[in-house]
Formats: sequence, structure tokens, C-alpha cells
Amino acid sequence: MDAALERFFSVAVRRASSIGASYARLWTALESSTRGGKRFRPRLVLDAYEGLGGTDLAAAAAVGAGFELLHTALIVHDDVIDRDFTRRGTPNVSGVYRDDATTAGIPIPTAEHRGMSTAIIAGDLALTGAYRIVDGAGLPEAIRVRVHALFDEAVFAAAAGELIDVDFSISPDVPSVDEVIGMERLKTAVYTFEAPLQAGAVLAGAREAYIAALGDFGKELGIAYQAMDDLLGVFGDEARTGKSTLGDLREGKRTVPVAFAATTDAWPGIRRYLGKSDLTDGEAHEVRRMLIACGAETFTRTLVSSRAAAAIRALERVPPALAQRLAPVVREALDRDR
Amino acid sequence: MDAALERFFSVAVRRASSIGASYARLWTALESSTRGGKRFRPRLVLDAYEGLGGTDLAAAAAVGAGFELLHTALIVHDDVIDRDFTRRGTPNVSGVYRDDATTAGIPIPTAEHRGMSTAIIAGDLALTGAYRIVDGAGLPEAIRVRVHALFDEAVFAAAAGELIDVDFSISPDVPSVDEVIGMERLKTAVYTFEAPLQAGAVLAGAREAYIAALGDFGKELGIAYQAMDDLLGVFGDEARTGKSTLGDLREGKRTVPVAFAATTDAWPGIRRYLGKSDLTDGEAHEVRRMLIACGAETFTRTLVSSRAAAAIRALERVPPALAQRLAPVVREALDRDR
Repeated sequence: MDAALERFFSVAVRRASSIGASYARLWTALESSTRGGKRFRPRLVLDAYEGLGGTDLAAAAAVGAGFELLHTALIVHDDVIDRDFTRRGTPNVSGVYRDDATTAGIPIPTAEHRGMSTAIIAGDLALTGAYRIVDGAGLPEAIRVRVHALFDEAVFAAAAGELIDVDFSISPDVPSVDEVIGMERLKTAVYTFEAPLQAGAVLAGAREAYIAALGDFGKELGIAYQAMDDLLGVFGDEARTGKSTLGDLREGKRTVPVAFAATTDAWPGIRRYLGKSDLTDGEAHEVRRMLIACGAETFTRTLVSSRAAAAIRALERVPPALAQRLAPVVREALDRDR
Repeated sequence: MDAALERFFSVAVRRASSIGASYARLWTALESSTRGGKRFRPRLVLDAYEGLGGTDLAAAAAVGAGFELLHTALIVHDDVIDRDFTRRGTPNVSGVYRDDATTAGIPIPTAEHRGMSTAIIAGDLALTGAYRIVDGAGLPEAIRVRVHALFDEAVFAAAAGELIDVDFSISPDVPSVDEVIGMERLKTAVYTFEAPLQAGAVLAGAREAYIAALGDFGKELGIAYQAMDDLLGVFGDEARTGKSTLGDLREGKRTVPVAFAATTDAWPGIRRYLGKSDLTDGEAHEVRRMLIACGAETFTRTLVSSRAAAAIRALERVPPALAQRLAPVVREALDRDR
């Protein structure tokens, strides 16, 4: 999969160089932003594919690389929407182009807008690149059409989730736990879990029942994973997650624990700290204490466990060889610290 | 072509409704932003296709609709980059969602950011939709692959042009006329002229020499068209163009006449008005006078004519039936008032 992405980018950088050095540099920045991730999606494509007897690893790698590029496109645009200029501690595409402009003496607002503009362009290239890389995999027509349909569904869902998230972020109302779960599933879980697993199965020519079971498995795992993310965002170990545990609170992010807390008596106490952009460590500590006391933390952990258990149950409907490959993924999702 | 787009959107709106009313509304807003255009790209696909003997109008319509969606994606994202909330006098996607938020009592900066965030999402949907609609056209494999390659080249070029344009807009330096022409060609002309014409020819199974000739024709026509746009942006009749003749000047846009003027003695006089966000009608009149006096207006008109003539010459290399269809397009590009 890494080789497939490298090939894609080396061709793109070469073509871009013929237009100009600055365009080649954008492609290089985009390639950098595909690095350092967990390669979750390609791995799931491959797990499903090999677990169902697939042997053409090049085809699976190309589809995996397509999902990785789709992920890149979505996070690059999501960072623009969230006005984030870093990801995991290093400048993202917006950040690189903003910093570059400020170094050249351009005032911050203009430099930030330049960074975000460039990131919009870069995301568009990654998005079309995702289709291109799948297209170039030489898949049989019927399979190619189905893989593309899974890509389309993934993009369709991710856009819906992003839209709902944008509206959560500007509304004073707190959504229900189910609404948060629904948003997180659309925004991330479909393209991260369900679609890659199903694409791997489609590639392997699997029977429909297995494809459906993998969809259910991916859905449950995705919800567990995202709820775990919500917990790590507030209760995680910053040194391990590489992510501040103040960010989500300062942003007032609508997460599963927050949505749960809003239904309890602790809410008035918690609410006044959420979205406070200068929240201190001491205040964050106080919010965490209240989230634990009102049961939001326990509720979310229980949700993670029960969804993980549902995922494991879905594996009873696929061949044992596949179930054996996927069970560890669930354990990782539960035990991870980043 | 309109029917192909309508079908695409009616399916999308229905699918989106199952997720929620707000998502269906986004698709409706996106569909609205495909309306009111000149349908230039689908028409060129069809002209090339029919002019070269193609008879499967449904296939040509699907590819035309794909280019129209690609155009929508690019202008929706371009408007975010330009921080424009209207297009042709009516709110664009960013504008609709901004206005909606301000009506709900959300402060302007948040409302604007919400509008722009939504437009990023909408553009992503249009971009993937463009691939999807071509994919669904049922084209023979070899032709589908080539049409997709033309789409990829069009996106590749448009992204490069947009990047160069972003950098023009923040640099104090004025690019050369050739640099402006190169940027305009990449940003707009490739996906508007060259790629649709070549896609129509590929669909019709045309010989390579015709495809190449159409590429040259499209390139020359595209440059003429964009240079004409630059003229209309400053010297046009607002009532006809529907576009203020103050916009480009206030923005300090790097156009062909501006790049030419920068090489003349008139530049110090012109420069101080360019990028003046509160430029008055009187000052704009003065800039126009200077652009005419220094020869920038004449230079640009001459460029339009010579490139149009080159386009006409390229038509000598295609069958007469095709040349007869395309010659009027060149005349329109020259004589248009919007």
C-alpha cells in the first residue's frame, strides 16, 4: 500500500514539476500529510480481502491506498473547517502554507487565509486522487463499479457527518447521545471501517452475507472507536495521544460524554466551562471530575464495550479465518491509548 | 444534459433525505448552484461528439453533465477561496448558509465561517459527483478510462491554476502577461475548453490527430475567452455581465491588461488604485482611462483576436462538419457581453 501511494505521488510530483516548483511543493506537502497515520483503512481492506481468500495483493493495496487518500482529503478539509493549522503536533497543509507566508512577511490573517485556500486545493487533489488510484488498479469492471459505489457512499456519509458536525458546533443546543453517535458514524466510521472492510470483501468476490456482516461489524466497531476517541480527547494521556486534553473542552465539542452529561443534574456545572477558549488545566480537571461524577465517563466506557461486543458478535457471521484476523482489531480499538 | 443532472440530483436528494432534512437541503443548494450557467462545457462535449459523428447522445450528455458538476465544484471552492458569498447577484452556497445562520441570530464571523465550511463540503460532493456521473454512463472500458484521464488532467490543471492565482493575490509583485495567461489557462481554460472538447472526441472514437487539434483549438479559444473576461471585468457593461466592474480593480486582480500595464510608464499611476477596497466609481473611471491610454486595453483586445484566429486555424485540422459547429463558438467568445 505504501508503495502504491509512493508511486501515485512520485508521478504526481513529476507532472506537477513540469508546471512549476510551487505546484510540485504542494504535492509534496500533500504526500507528507498522508504520512504518520495508522494506516487503519488500508489495513482493514487487506484484512477483509486476505481473510476471505483474496490473493491479488496489488489490487487490494491500490484500493487501500485509495481509502488512505480519501482519508487525507477529508482530514485536510476538516482541518480547514476547524481552522486547525497543526495535526499531531506538526503543521498540516494549511499550517505549512500559512507559516511560509508569515515568514515572507505577509500579515497573519492573509497568511492564514492563504494556508486554508491551499489546503482546499490540496484536499480536492487528494479526493480526485482517491478515485484515480482505484481506477488505475485494473479491477474487473463489475468489481470496480462496486468499489466505486462504496467510495461514493463513504464520501456521501462523510459529507453528511461533517455538515451535521458544523451545525452542532454553532448551535447552543446539545444534541442527544444518539445524534452524536449518528454524526460520528457518518463523519468518520463509514469511510474508516464499513467501506474499507466491504471493499476488501467485494474485491475478494465474497458472498453478500459476508459483505453485510462486515458492514455491521464495521458500524459497531466504528461507533466504539469514535466513543473511545471522545474519551481520549478528555481523559487521555497527552503524552501518548499527542493531543491536548483541553482541545475538545475548549472547543465545546459535542461528544458522547458531553451529550450524556447534558441529560444529568451536573449539566449546569459542566456547561459553563465548555467552549471556554481559555480553559485552564485546573478548570479542565474540574470538568473531568464532574463528567466522572455524573456518570458520563462510565456511560461512554460502557457504550464502547457494548458496541465492541456487538462487533465481535457480527464476526460470528463471517468465516473463522476472517474473524480471527479482525478480532484483534476490536481489542486494539478498546485498549488503545491514542 | 439537464436531464442527466436532474436525475443525478434527484437521486442524491432522496438519499440525503434519509439522513436528514438539512443534508437534503445542502444537495438542493448545490443543485441550485449548477443552474443559470451557460452550459458551456456540456455544449462543447456535444459539439465535438456530434461533429465527429457520435450518435449516443445519452453518453455525451452524461459526460457533459460530469464537466458541469466539475465546474460547479471548482467555482464553489473558488468562491470560498475568494471569500465571495454571491455569484451573479444571488447568494452562492456559502451565502445561503451564512444568511441562514445570521437569520438565526448567529454572529457574522461565525455565520460566514459556517457558510464557507458548508461550501467546502458541497464542493467535495460536486467533485466526486462528477466522477460518479461519468462512471454511471455505461461507457466502454477503454473510452471510460480515457475520459477519466481527461477529467484528472482537468482537475490537475485547475488546482495548479488556483494555487498560482492564490499566490498572485498575496504577492506585491505583478506577474508577466505570459504568467497571467498561463495561470488563466490552467485555472479555467483546460477544464472549460480543452478537456470537454477532447472528451467529446474520445467518446466519438475520433482519431488522435483530431483529438490533438481540438486540444489546440480549446487552448487558443480558452486564452481568448479568459482575456476577454479580463476586459469585461473592467470595461464591461454591468447590466449585461451581471458583474460589477469595480470588483477586479478593488481586489487588485492580476489580469492580462494589468500585467501589461505594469510594463509601461503608466504603472505608478495605476498601481495606487489597484487593490483599493473602497475604490470609487470616479477612481475606477480614471484607472480605465489610464489602462486605455497606456495601451493595455488594445493589447488585450489584440491578444483576444490573435488567439481567436489561432483557434480558427486549428479548425483546419478537423473535419469540416466539426469546424462548422465550432467556428460560431469562437465568434461568441469574441462578441459576448457577459
